Amino acid sequence: MTKKDMRRSGCPISFGLDLFGDRWTLLVLRDVLLKKQSTFQEFLEAEEGIASNILADRLKKLEESGIIKKSRDRKDRRQFRYGPTEKGRSLVPVLLEIAAWGATHDKHTDAPKGFAKAFYANRAQVIDDFEL
Amino acid sequence: MTKKDMRRSGCPISFGLDLFGDRWTLLVLRDVLLKKQSTFQEFLEAEEGIASNILADRLKKLEESGIIKKSRDRKDRRQFRYGPTEKGRSLVPVLLEIAAWGATHDKHTDAPKGFAKAFYANRAQVIDDFEL
Repeated sequence: MTKKDMRRSGCPISFGLDLFGDRWTLLVLRDVLLKKQSTFQEFLEAEEGIASNILADRLKKLEESGIIKKSRDRKDRRQFRYGPTEKGRSLVPVLLEIAAWGATHDKHTDAPKGFAKAFYANRAQVIDDFEL
Repeated sequence: MTKKDMRRSGCPISFGLDLFGDRWTLLVLRDVLLKKQSTFQEFLEAEEGIASNILADRLKKLEESGIIKKSRDRKDRRQFRYGPTEKGRSLVPVLLEIAAWGATHDKHTDAPKGFAKAFYANRAQVIDDFEL
């Protein structure tokens, strides 16, 4: 059975969701892509309280999918750093769309005032700013 | 304990993912928002093969979140129809971003040729076309 046969459909949304379609994976991607965090400890300290075994599992899967890459810290060789690949970096717009939606619909959001409005008015610019 | 206290963080991404951050919910939203499907039977027949109990659960949650609304078919009163609310319709860009990413990174995608390129070149236009 080839990899293609194992997939549930040829739908591009289903393809993406097979790789990152769960809450914890998307929160880890938020930390890597938007918060520019890079260590296991930083991800573990996210306010949502991810369990360390779930975090380890999601990091492994994201690495296997070629969305993030793992490398040793140049100064402290015992420390690993996780960073986005190009394929991973191209998920920034997905996360920003979710953020703009949440900022719009949550009365108690911590998102910066005006973020959603600025994003919807000029997506390309806001995305560029984050991808740099 | 207020609703705000129960949330895991004030992050707008976490807020969104609490409501729709799982694979099956996002596939149902694809069917409602992009495929313009409206009946339980149509969602059940999606190629990915959602189980009927999971589908029922996700429809209920989406309705409770005010993302979709349920109504009786005007002609056949025994038939229910599900459609997006305004809040739900504003998730179209999230789904299109996932679709464009999937179409870009899946060699075997069924997405129309040129879709991702057209989307990235002019997001606002493609989003408008789908939201109509």
